[in-house]
Amino acid sequence: MSKAVKAAIIGSTGYGGVELIRLLAHHPQVEVTSVISSSSAGAPIAEGFPHLTEICTDILDDVDPALIRSKAEVVFIATPPGIAARLIPSLLAEGLKVIDISGDHRLKSRSEYETWYKKEPAEQQYLDQAVYGLCEVYGEAVHGVDLISNPGCFPTSALLGLIPAVQEGYIDHSTIIIDAKSGVSGAGRGTSVGNHYPEINENFRAYKINKHQHIPEIEQVLSDIAGEKVLTTFTTHLVPMTRGIMSTIYATVKDGHTVEDFISLYSNYYEGRKFVRIRKNGTWPATKEVSGSNYCDIGFSVDERTGRITIVSVIDNLVKGAAGQAIQNLNLMMGWDETLGLNFVPMYP
Amino acid sequence: MSKAVKAAIIGSTGYGGVELIRLLAHHPQVEVTSVISSSSAGAPIAEGFPHLTEICTDILDDVDPALIRSKAEVVFIATPPGIAARLIPSLLAEGLKVIDISGDHRLKSRSEYETWYKKEPAEQQYLDQAVYGLCEVYGEAVHGVDLISNPGCFPTSALLGLIPAVQEGYIDHSTIIIDAKSGVSGAGRGTSVGNHYPEINENFRAYKINKHQHIPEIEQVLSDIAGEKVLTTFTTHLVPMTRGIMSTIYATVKDGHTVEDFISLYSNYYEGRKFVRIRKNGTWPATKEVSGSNYCDIGFSVDERTGRITIVSVIDNLVKGAAGQAIQNLNLMMGWDETLGLNFVPMYP
Amino acid sequence: MSKAVKAAIIGSTGYGGVELIRLLAHHPQVEVTSVISSSSAGAPIAEGFPHLTEICTDILDDVDPALIRSKAEVVFIATPPGIAARLIPSLLAEGLKVIDISGDHRLKSRSEYETWYKKEPAEQQYLDQAVYGLCEVYGEAVHGVDLISNPGCFPTSALLGLIPAVQEGYIDHSTIIIDAKSGVSGAGRGTSVGNHYPEINENFRAYKINKHQHIPEIEQVLSDIAGEKVLTTFTTHLVPMTRGIMSTIYATVKDGHTVEDFISLYSNYYEGRKFVRIRKNGTWPATKEVSGSNYCDIGFSVDERTGRITIVSVIDNLVKGAAGQAIQNLNLMMGWDETLGLNFVPMYP
Amino acid sequence: MSKAVKAAIIGSTGYGGVELIRLLAHHPQVEVTSVISSSSAGAPIAEGFPHLTEICTDILDDVDPALIRSKAEVVFIATPPGIAARLIPSLLAEGLKVIDISGDHRLKSRSEYETWYKKEPAEQQYLDQAVYGLCEVYGEAVHGVDLISNPGCFPTSALLGLIPAVQEGYIDHSTIIIDAKSGVSGAGRGTSVGNHYPEINENFRAYKINKHQHIPEIEQVLSDIAGEKVLTTFTTHLVPMTRGIMSTIYATVKDGHTVEDFISLYSNYYEGRKFVRIRKNGTWPATKEVSGSNYCDIGFSVDERTGRITIVSVIDNLVKGAAGQAIQNLNLMMGWDETLGLNFVPMYP
Repeated sequence: MSKAVKAAIIGSTGYGGVELIRLLAHHPQVEVTSVISSSSAGAPIAEGFPHLTEICTDILDDVDPALIRSKAEVVFIATPPGIAARLIPSLLAEGLKVIDISGDHRLKSRSEYETWYKKEPAEQQYLDQAVYGLCEVYGEAVHGVDLISNPGCFPTSALLGLIPAVQEGYIDHSTIIIDAKSGVSGAGRGTSVGNHYPEINENFRAYKINKHQHIPEIEQVLSDIAGEKVLTTFTTHLVPMTRGIMSTIYATVKDGHTVEDFISLYSNYYEGRKFVRIRKNGTWPATKEVSGSNYCDIGFSVDERTGRITIVSVIDNLVKGAAGQAIQNLNLMMGWDETLGLNFVPMYP
Repeated sequence: MSKAVKAAIIGSTGYGGVELIRLLAHHPQVEVTSVISSSSAGAPIAEGFPHLTEICTDILDDVDPALIRSKAEVVFIATPPGIAARLIPSLLAEGLKVIDISGDHRLKSRSEYETWYKKEPAEQQYLDQAVYGLCEVYGEAVHGVDLISNPGCFPTSALLGLIPAVQEGYIDHSTIIIDAKSGVSGAGRGTSVGNHYPEINENFRAYKINKHQHIPEIEQVLSDIAGEKVLTTFTTHLVPMTRGIMSTIYATVKDGHTVEDFISLYSNYYEGRKFVRIRKNGTWPATKEVSGSNYCDIGFSVDERTGRITIVSVIDNLVKGAAGQAIQNLNLMMGWDETLGLNFVPMYP
Repeated sequence: MSKAVKAAIIGSTGYGGVELIRLLAHHPQVEVTSVISSSSAGAPIAEGFPHLTEICTDILDDVDPALIRSKAEVVFIATPPGIAARLIPSLLAEGLKVIDISGDHRLKSRSEYETWYKKEPAEQQYLDQAVYGLCEVYGEAVHGVDLISNPGCFPTSALLGLIPAVQEGYIDHSTIIIDAKSGVSGAGRGTSVGNHYPEINENFRAYKINKHQHIPEIEQVLSDIAGEKVLTTFTTHLVPMTRGIMSTIYATVKDGHTVEDFISLYSNYYEGRKFVRIRKNGTWPATKEVSGSNYCDIGFSVDERTGRITIVSVIDNLVKGAAGQAIQNLNLMMGWDETLGLNFVPMYP
Repeated sequence: MSKAVKAAIIGSTGYGGVELIRLLAHHPQVEVTSVISSSSAGAPIAEGFPHLTEICTDILDDVDPALIRSKAEVVFIATPPGIAARLIPSLLAEGLKVIDISGDHRLKSRSEYETWYKKEPAEQQYLDQAVYGLCEVYGEAVHGVDLISNPGCFPTSALLGLIPAVQEGYIDHSTIIIDAKSGVSGAGRGTSVGNHYPEINENFRAYKINKHQHIPEIEQVLSDIAGEKVLTTFTTHLVPMTRGIMSTIYATVKDGHTVEDFISLYSNYYEGRKFVRIRKNGTWPATKEVSGSNYCDIGFSVDERTGRITIVSVIDNLVKGAAGQAIQNLNLMMGWDETLGLNFVPMYP
């Protein structure tokens, strides 16, 4: 039985790429017809990823837009930043639909990209064309487009935890502080002393403080939602674990809103959106409770002593923070149910 | 759309129980209609397992055979040892089909059970009736029966790694040594100092040396295969990880068989059995390469210097070592394809 | 060669207690003459802690003030909260010097203790008598006293990271937010599902948000330093590791102070205090970089965009956050060099 | 106060090198006067290892035998294999005493070295000159020599667990199987996908089966002890932890020896040797119980059913398996007490 859509994955030898393969194996309408890696072309993908033995027996293709077009209608780009910007014009010219997970098309401003990514930005027309696929917020805009920019992992958890409150003015958006923690898979498969096992294990580390390229992405979206420029303090930490992101978010509450008000606001905002789960009062999600799944779980605590709210938002960085949301975007792009092929129960323990 | 079979899970608040829930959520023919826990009856299962929020909204039932029968046709028992032996007579009397994951019906001898489990054994008629569901070996015998005893986690990895060689006489079965390593989830959710996080993390420990209750289970099957009494040395170790079992198996090779002979023997033996993957010469599987999936991966090395073979066999203890094989047994019991609902790609990394 | 001081340890079968034994084995002036545990009295301590085999061959004593006095001059109390409050009057009456690590004598207000600890507080006279032993801040006051209350683990890291800035008015103390992360040993050796290995491993969790008993301790000290009531937002998280605390601290900078100003301020404040190390601009400490040692390392980042400072402060919760600082307090109490017996190099990796 | 001996460390930016710095900081007779790294010469060592901030403020020297001689009398070589063989002639020519941790001088046969290490061997005269410093076995021979070859980490744990039984003929040495497990620090600080955090965490892996360069080292020593050629089966595994090695050793018992016989034999053999601790019957050591210390702990189980013994031997690979034993060798070389400066209590938890 042939499936509706044929998909190619550029960057199949990265963690985002193999996660797409894992998830798409369950998708009723999508078939992966080309796994692509410029560095390992010609080798079987299962050689570098033996967990795919007998599951994905494909040989890795080189990056060749015409070849991709001959095999697929949709292409996911799961490379490190700086590559998608160069590839996308020719992919679009071939008539392919593109979902860019790499980050090259998230910031609308070329100079912001240069400042934070320290790389050559994409051309402005593609930055303008790319729709930012934060599904529960901008999902309508994704329908039918050709180029989707998949949100970053940290922004996904932070923004889903902040947007309803910012939009409705429940918090003073000049007071937002996001203390984020991530598992190590977020840094990809490229090795470095910083991600060497003995340096991470039994260790907890902050990095790129006030320098992370997800800061302008978060602010761009919050400013869009708030209708005025929003600045945030955002810190990233590495947790000795592989998967998972938690954003612990702080802000000053306005108008005496209670924790019940927030729970009610978020429950309404995300009504009908299966992948956001609002936790009940007095409980907060842990990262493992969404591991392997496309969920973003959110919990709240309001401290009357200080007038501040603490919002805890968790995702699996490789699923809702990358491959899962990319598939959710494909579903929306195609006009399918956004949950199609994504009903994974979190793997616990 | 109603599914073909309704299933109940006794022991739903253990790790085996919630893993059944996770896996069965994807099964096209099985619906979980009752989650059961004597200790937590009346509470929503998602209270103790928040990863199931909005996924399984069921309230835990108490253990009541008539109630189970009113809701289900098949029942999985995922309790600690010593409970299934008491429950099964009334469950069978109700006309339920039973898959016992607990271990109470694996040993055919009551006295052996008493010796190794230090508990009161099941009645002999049920020990006789229970079919030992090591699917790739005894799968034919499972078809249509009412009572299946699901193999232990260590025996599954050890036996799948040994049976072809023992059956064909490629190794001297008086020389078998199994050095097994397991993640901590194998010990269940019950707390103890031994499984307290700070005692396991950054630690590696042997336990129950020459005393583990899986020893007689392994020997019972190997003796059945060999046609004579087989004794083995078997050691268990706790690895600072949650999931995964590796059995590193040693034996003296007979008749000068080479590693290629073993690979060929095993490939033939397991031909058509999707969940056993034989690794190619010079490579061995790691536990993460089967994590979250129903695979058992096996690799080999023959040392000409010593005349010994080293066999490496890995599984996810909660899937192929428990819930996954239990579903595979249900599939075989029902006459379905054994892979139905079990095509999970390993979660890597 | 006899040592100057004989010490007893109440609570020797907890993690704080065995850490005292580990550290004091290197102390040139202190000999441990009694290891005490009400729950395990009569058993050799090495039975429950085999790492002490042939190192500490003592049998655990029961809690008996007169017996303690016959063996020791100083007693460390490393029990859970709620016990020291009952024991200390009789220990002091025996003429023993007491260092209380348990937390019972940190809050000066009985009603605050009741509110946050949900236990019966110590009598007011002992709360008044106890000197709060945050060595680098109140070290002078410790000299010669009989009762020291050792600071909590989170407060130690947070306060050492905040006090110079609060004292000198470099930050707006109404804006302080402390996002703290701890290894699991901080919760002690008592088992619970929450600290069961499979629930912690590959997981990151927030807990006791706005409810932690270390909040009033932090505020009590900051208010003392500031000369007015200071409220803070404080969140605790569990990291899948055994040892280590990081406090990531946020506040609004006053008077345009730069990161260099902060580094200079802290370097001066802690001059001559070996156990506080100020990191140079652009670098921040990781928890493993102080593991097993009595150091508290602090790094800074000032964000000109938002006008906020981020302060990163790390300790080993069992050393500087418990046993190590307790010994440092003993040293100060005795008039010795505060570093005596505490010159452990962090264990890395 | 000046210390008796000045020491230099070649390979100070590896894990073995920084562990020497950590341990020697406590040594009453040794001062580290030069930290050396060809790759990072000119940089402060604390730059790459911030845990040494304010502890070791040295700038890394380049490798220069005359310079080393001007600063030190003893030199430790803690480089990867293949470097010491080139350096040692000139170091010895300068009159330095050398302790080689790198492995280049362990195998007495140049061809064996080439076969297993795939590198150019040292010259025969230095292989002949080097004394194999397994302290509890060959400690007498170390006294006063100029060149010591420090044993490998796996061989240390395996040999201490085997030698008394092999020497006294308690086991059939043709049946020896060593199933070894190691933390990841054993592979050094050099990065590779295989030691990348997400590939190791929550994973258990076998590697170099029947190919590990420690096999001939183990066999060379056992053959020397047995007085005839001994072959062994030896398997290495990577455990998701940083420190620690366990060797689980199997052999057929001769002459009906009981577990008590073995405990008695080993207790006598290691009498007076502080760093080997024999565990009592029915208990076995875990790796964390020796972490950070120079102990090797050994436990036993004899299975009467199979006639085999299981021996469990654990060390900290960076201490007794590298830097600690190197210092123990220095102590013996100098005629000091072998425990000098090495009385570290294991860090637990």
